[in-house]
Amino acid sequence: MNRFKNFPMVPRVIFGAGSLDQLGEILMPKRTSSEAPFIFLVDSVFEDTDLPGRIPLLFHDQIIFISSDEEPKTEQVDALAQRIRDSFSELPSGIVGIGGGTIMDLAKAVAIMLTNKGGAADYQGWDLVKKPSIYHVGIPTISGTGAEVSRTTVLLGPEKKLGINSDSTTFDQVVLDPDLAQGVPTEQWFYTGMDCYIHCIESLSGTYLNAFSQSYGEKALELCKEVFLNNICEAESRDKLMMASWHGGMSIAYSQVGVAHAMSYGLSYSLGIRHGIGNCLIFQHLEEFYPQGVELFHEMKNKHNISLPTGICKGLSDSEYDTMIAVAMSLEPLWENAVGYDWRRTITPEKLKSIYGKI
Amino acid sequence: MNRFKNFPMVPRVIFGAGSLDQLGEILMPKRTSSEAPFIFLVDSVFEDTDLPGRIPLLFHDQIIFISSDEEPKTEQVDALAQRIRDSFSELPSGIVGIGGGTIMDLAKAVAIMLTNKGGAADYQGWDLVKKPSIYHVGIPTISGTGAEVSRTTVLLGPEKKLGINSDSTTFDQVVLDPDLAQGVPTEQWFYTGMDCYIHCIESLSGTYLNAFSQSYGEKALELCKEVFLNNICEAESRDKLMMASWHGGMSIAYSQVGVAHAMSYGLSYSLGIRHGIGNCLIFQHLEEFYPQGVELFHEMKNKHNISLPTGICKGLSDSEYDTMIAVAMSLEPLWENAVGYDWRRTITPEKLKSIYGKI
Repeated sequence: MNRFKNFPMVPRVIFGAGSLDQLGEILMPKRTSSEAPFIFLVDSVFEDTDLPGRIPLLFHDQIIFISSDEEPKTEQVDALAQRIRDSFSELPSGIVGIGGGTIMDLAKAVAIMLTNKGGAADYQGWDLVKKPSIYHVGIPTISGTGAEVSRTTVLLGPEKKLGINSDSTTFDQVVLDPDLAQGVPTEQWFYTGMDCYIHCIESLSGTYLNAFSQSYGEKALELCKEVFLNNICEAESRDKLMMASWHGGMSIAYSQVGVAHAMSYGLSYSLGIRHGIGNCLIFQHLEEFYPQGVELFHEMKNKHNISLPTGICKGLSDSEYDTMIAVAMSLEPLWENAVGYDWRRTITPEKLKSIYGKI
Repeated sequence: MNRFKNFPMVPRVIFGAGSLDQLGEILMPKRTSSEAPFIFLVDSVFEDTDLPGRIPLLFHDQIIFISSDEEPKTEQVDALAQRIRDSFSELPSGIVGIGGGTIMDLAKAVAIMLTNKGGAADYQGWDLVKKPSIYHVGIPTISGTGAEVSRTTVLLGPEKKLGINSDSTTFDQVVLDPDLAQGVPTEQWFYTGMDCYIHCIESLSGTYLNAFSQSYGEKALELCKEVFLNNICEAESRDKLMMASWHGGMSIAYSQVGVAHAMSYGLSYSLGIRHGIGNCLIFQHLEEFYPQGVELFHEMKNKHNISLPTGICKGLSDSEYDTMIAVAMSLEPLWENAVGYDWRRTITPEKLKSIYGKI
C-alpha cells in the first residue's frame, strides 16, 4: 500500500498590502493572559524604520531584533528560548517572526523549543518533535524561501545543516503583506526569489512529484517567470513574488528539492554561505541535471545584471571538500528525488567535488 | 484602511490515489471516547459498492447513506443533527462526508448544527455561527464544486438558497483520493467540473480579485483546460480535476463568484435544478459578461457531446419569474464582484428575465 503524508497547511492566512495593520486584532484572542507576552522576532534591518511602531505591543510583549546576516543556528535557537524562559514567569502567548527566511525559521524553531526538552539539534530530522509548539505567526518581508508555508525550519547545527521537519513546525497564522517587501536590495531580492525558482525546477523534475505538488510548482514557476522575465510594475511584482513563494513552498508538500539544495547545504555548513546565493552558485553549473532550468536562470540573472561571486572554493583543502561533500550527500531524500533510488551509482564524491570546484 | 479577510485554510490534507485507506489512522487520535462515534455521511450511490467496507468503523460509528439527487436543504440538516443527537449520549467525535458537493455541504452544516442552537436557516449568511463546529472531514468523490476547501456550505432554506459562510464551516481535514472519482457518469462529471471552470471565469474577471485569488484561479483554469480540452489519460484527468477543484475553491478566498452563480441559485431555489447543471444552463447565455469564457465553454461542451436541456423556463408564470429573479438579485456580493458597486444600474429584473427566458 502506498503511504501518503497527511500534510499540515497553515490554518489561517491573510493577504493584502497593509494587512500588517490587522495584526493586533489577530493576536488578541490568542493572548492566554496578561503575563504571557507575545515575543516578536524582527529582522534588525527594520530597527530604525517605522515597522517596530506598527507592532501591536501590549502588557509585557517584547521585540527582539535579530540580524539575518548569518544562517539560523541551533545554538541561537536554544539561546533565544532560554532568554525567553528566563524573562517571563509564564510561557509566551506566542512567537511572531517578521523578516526573511532566517527569521521565519528562528520563529518556528523557538516556538518548538519552548515546549520541548533538550536542544534544537536534537530535533533536526524528520518527525522527532514530541510536544506541540506554542502558537506562532510568520510575517515574511522578503519572498522566495517558502518558509512561511513549509513544515520545516532549516538550521545550522554542530554536526549538520538540516531541518526540523514536523507538523508542529508549520505556522499557525501567516500574514502576507506585500508592502513589507518594499526596499529589499536587488541582489537579496534576486537570490531569495531564485530560492523559489530553484524549488520549482527541482520539485517539478523530481521523481517524488505528484499532481498536488505539480499544480503548486507549475503556478509558482509561472509567477517567477512573470516577476523575473516580464516587465511588470513593482507593486504587482511584489504581490506575485509573494504568491510564488507561497505556492513554491506548497509544492514541496509531496515532493522534495534536489541537487542545488543538497549541495548548497554543504556550502552553508562549511563556508557559512547564505542559502539563497548558495543555491545560485551551485545551480548555475547544473545543466546536466536541469538543462532548461539553468538556461532560464542565466536569462534571469542577465536581465537583472546580477554577477555571482567567483573563486568561492578556491584553495579549499581536501578535508574541507570532504566535509562539504559529506553534508551534501547526507541529504538522501533530496538525491533520491533528483536522481532516483539508485542515486549513489552516479552521485559520487568526485562528481560533487568537480561541481564545487567550479564555483 | 483596507480590511482583509483572515482566511481559514483546511489545516490538514492528504492527497493520493488510495489515500482513503489511511482514514482509520487519521481519525483515531480524534476519537474523544468510545461513546462518541464518527458519523459517516455517504452518498447513496456507493451503497452497493466496496466503499462502505473500506470505512474504518469502530465502536458505535454509523454510516448514513444520503441521496444527492436534490440540493442540500436546511431542514435536511436539522433532521440529521436531531437524529444524531437522539441516537447517542455524547456528541460525535466527528462528521465525515464522502460524496460530491451536496454531501460535503451537508457534512459541514451538520457539524455546525451539532454545537449551535436553533435551525440551520438561522445561520445562512455571513459570520453568524456562534460556536465552533465539531471536527469534520471532507472526502470528495466528484470534483469541481470546491466545497472541500471553501468556508461556506450552500443550503436551500425556506426563504433562500444561501451559504452558511463562517470560519467554523471549513473542514478540519480533507482526503483527496482521485480514485474515488472513478465511474462518475459523463454528464455529472462535466456539469460538476464546469462548476469549477465557471468559478474561475467569474473569480478572475471579478472586481474583487487580488493576487492571492488570481494565482489560484489561474491555475485552476489551466487545469480545467487540460482536463476538458486536451486528451489526457483518465487517471491523470481525475488527478488534475481534483486539484482544479481545490485551487478553484481557494480562488474564491478573496474573490467571489458572479452572474452565473447568482442566477443559478435562483433556478435551484425555484425549480430545484441542481447547481452544476444550473450554472451551465445560465452560463451558456452570458457572452455579454464573459465573452471568452463562454466561447471556451461551448468548445468543451461540444468536445464531450453534452446537450443541455432546453425549455426549462417555458411557461413559467410571472410570479415564478419574480421569485427566481428576487433570489438571484439578493446575492449582492456576487453582483458587485461581477459588475461593480453600481451593479443595480444595469442588472434589472427585466434583464434577468430575458436571460432566464432563453433556457
